[in-house]
Amino acid sequence: MKYNTVNESVVNRLKKIAGPGNVLTDQEKMEAYTHDEVPETQWRSMPEVVVKPETAHQISEILKLANLEMIPVTPRGAGTGLAAGAVPVYGGIVLSTEKMNKIIELDRENLFMVVEPGVTTGEVQKLAAEEGYLYAGDPCSADSSFIGGNVATNAGGNKAVKYGCTSRHIYGIDIVLPSGEITTLGGKCVKDVTGYNLVSLMVGSEGTLGIVTKIYLKLLPKPRHNAVLLVPFADMQTAINIVPAVMTQAGIIPTSIEFMDSLCIKSAGSFLDRQLPHGDAGAYIIIEVDSNTESQLEEEFEAIGNICMDNGGLDVLVGNNAATQEKIWKPRRCLAEALRVTSPIYCMEDIVVPVSQIPAMVGEIEKIAERHSIKIPCFGHAGDGNIHATLLKEDMDDQTWQSVKETVLEEIYQATYSFGGKLSGEHGIGAKRRAAMIKFMDPVQINIIKSIKKALDPNLILNPGKIVDTSDL
Amino acid sequence: MKYNTVNESVVNRLKKIAGPGNVLTDQEKMEAYTHDEVPETQWRSMPEVVVKPETAHQISEILKLANLEMIPVTPRGAGTGLAAGAVPVYGGIVLSTEKMNKIIELDRENLFMVVEPGVTTGEVQKLAAEEGYLYAGDPCSADSSFIGGNVATNAGGNKAVKYGCTSRHIYGIDIVLPSGEITTLGGKCVKDVTGYNLVSLMVGSEGTLGIVTKIYLKLLPKPRHNAVLLVPFADMQTAINIVPAVMTQAGIIPTSIEFMDSLCIKSAGSFLDRQLPHGDAGAYIIIEVDSNTESQLEEEFEAIGNICMDNGGLDVLVGNNAATQEKIWKPRRCLAEALRVTSPIYCMEDIVVPVSQIPAMVGEIEKIAERHSIKIPCFGHAGDGNIHATLLKEDMDDQTWQSVKETVLEEIYQATYSFGGKLSGEHGIGAKRRAAMIKFMDPVQINIIKSIKKALDPNLILNPGKIVDTSDL
Repeated sequence: MKYNTVNESVVNRLKKIAGPGNVLTDQEKMEAYTHDEVPETQWRSMPEVVVKPETAHQISEILKLANLEMIPVTPRGAGTGLAAGAVPVYGGIVLSTEKMNKIIELDRENLFMVVEPGVTTGEVQKLAAEEGYLYAGDPCSADSSFIGGNVATNAGGNKAVKYGCTSRHIYGIDIVLPSGEITTLGGKCVKDVTGYNLVSLMVGSEGTLGIVTKIYLKLLPKPRHNAVLLVPFADMQTAINIVPAVMTQAGIIPTSIEFMDSLCIKSAGSFLDRQLPHGDAGAYIIIEVDSNTESQLEEEFEAIGNICMDNGGLDVLVGNNAATQEKIWKPRRCLAEALRVTSPIYCMEDIVVPVSQIPAMVGEIEKIAERHSIKIPCFGHAGDGNIHATLLKEDMDDQTWQSVKETVLEEIYQATYSFGGKLSGEHGIGAKRRAAMIKFMDPVQINIIKSIKKALDPNLILNPGKIVDTSDL
Repeated sequence: MKYNTVNESVVNRLKKIAGPGNVLTDQEKMEAYTHDEVPETQWRSMPEVVVKPETAHQISEILKLANLEMIPVTPRGAGTGLAAGAVPVYGGIVLSTEKMNKIIELDRENLFMVVEPGVTTGEVQKLAAEEGYLYAGDPCSADSSFIGGNVATNAGGNKAVKYGCTSRHIYGIDIVLPSGEITTLGGKCVKDVTGYNLVSLMVGSEGTLGIVTKIYLKLLPKPRHNAVLLVPFADMQTAINIVPAVMTQAGIIPTSIEFMDSLCIKSAGSFLDRQLPHGDAGAYIIIEVDSNTESQLEEEFEAIGNICMDNGGLDVLVGNNAATQEKIWKPRRCLAEALRVTSPIYCMEDIVVPVSQIPAMVGEIEKIAERHSIKIPCFGHAGDGNIHATLLKEDMDDQTWQSVKETVLEEIYQATYSFGGKLSGEHGIGAKRRAAMIKFMDPVQINIIKSIKKALDPNLILNPGKIVDTSDL
């Protein structure tokens, strides 16, 4: 599959479609569109042109043009991705949704919000909360990420244990297919088995099957009370054991169950310049619960606290107001920054294993780290089995880093699959994990993915090099 | 697309694959496999052979044979479907999963149950409950339906308002593709964005894309307390208004919010030979709530009761023990039977609209019924916007019934789409609604569905005539 370059005629046609002010060709202005939040330069690539359409119709025209001229189109939200999913690896057109940033409707009768893809997740959350609702999608990047990007990656985040990932809140999308055809999948019906579940197929497909132009988000009643518990443990195994215990012994599904290993605890303490409680603990568990009544909330966090203390918890610190909650969340939330201070170049992974396998998996990662003399702090979403193992380059030279990283990732992925796990829980495949996916996924499934891609995008013009690549087909 | 008939050689090869005891060719014995629970004879069809494989490997061999010989294969669970999805409309092989009925594992650490497709949903629910868990899938047919059928149709049911439909509880499946290839999609990871969401694509695809041979079901902690409220209203509009009110004013997501119109109330009363409370009401609303603590439960049902009384409820009857709950649920649960007594031949529909549109939709159905002098009682899942409008034949002659039914369905579907609704909320398309789907669905989406079907099943041997048909391709 050979793509053509973007010539002047194509640029002019793009200007005609989206308006001259919405088309960039200046290298300096396009620099911001060369990368997402993956820090390594290997995952950067300059677009030939950036276009910022304002309507589904414009997107349709752009995709028709791209098919005609055989030019790749890379859809882009806020660029907060962590898998190089919005990076134009083949150059061509970057299609930014930043101008499609309207909240279209808040439907109080059906508990839906209808938005364009360029609205930030934080705006959605804020409007919902102000009106007494909860939009339960909550990736860590909520303040800056676009809701369209959340849809493209099926973003996870902090409330997934209780409320599920983004896809659970998406009941409909307007989408422009690679062909340029426009259709509405789903809508405001909360159940629908009329044909295949195409909404779920599109959500998480990383813009390889279509570009979402309108999103129908389900809202929930907003829980009135919440509390956060910080529980240090001597070791990871003991810490993780409390996950099923909380759910079954106490019968509670917390909003969040997060974990940090000892490297992360130390890194956070040093970054915050703060003596963290039990700073020498083997693991922290952070549990958030929400409820409609204060009495139920108290019962729940007391029950959880007791289970933790009965099962090796070294202490239970309760945050039941904004200030104490912030104090508990801070060490967890600062981790990306804290680790970046330790090592500006790093490789954050996103493996997911069955919850019970977290201790074994983290143990395996520790062994791999030791074997290759590299630090790999681990933190993430214990309630989901989602481990952000983060390889730190520190003072390695570039060549050593590349080679060590490659070997270490290979070993981590191997272990992940041996524990019944998968490459990515919430960040996605993008360009970054494509080769690994081809290597570790059952070829039968790769063939299904390829055949769906080929059926919907025969010219492979939409986000090539992500999930599948031209060379795979 | 022309299929071949099942000759003696094919039967012998099937016997070799699955064992002679697992192959039926006797017409009398095959009679049970000619239909599901759609009562009309038009949706019956005799298989040429029935085979009851016991392993995924056997299913794989059967599908390879079917491809080789161009013979259609219709997968079948318990036959409790309501859309003729398991009926062999082209004859050929009926593949029954009844012998694959083992519960393989109860995983207490990860809160999963792993089962074969031929286990009844009731068994899954029972085992989960005995162990302190909730399997939250709960179609009305739970006692007899197979879990594999629930997966095939993405069954809805009584707990969908709070817990979602079947697909929300399915995290992994072993599946045999039409080609005979076997693969495991998903598994026990609770988050996974490694490639496209193929689990969700397969769930609800009615056995047209593969045959599920193992299912990884998520369990939840079992709520300790529940209560049921029956609230009669003077009319449907007032009744439905309480759905968003409960969720937003009280901030509660009930397990169920069911409704019955006045025709259903009368029919249930007469079937049960019981004076129902406010038997002349325009609508009944039944609300079930569950909770972990008794105090929270009481707060919740009192809050709901108050909202109902403040918003036109004629009365609030509370069921807080097994006997009183049964008394409230009985009139709702007996409806299929009660309507069958009124009219042995009927056509139960499954339209779904945004919740706020239920009153308008039911009003429209009343007008259509009046126009065509037919009774169309309506009941269903108010919290989901899912209306089981049920056309009664009563004493019409067959020809009139066919013609009236056709016109009435056309008008109901037209109204459904005008209200932002869809053909089916939980029963599926099957053979019964295929023509209507082709007529009412955006052709762009039909093309996506067709292209996925063609990509995965190029010979169209798997469940042809359901969702898509050979003539569409």
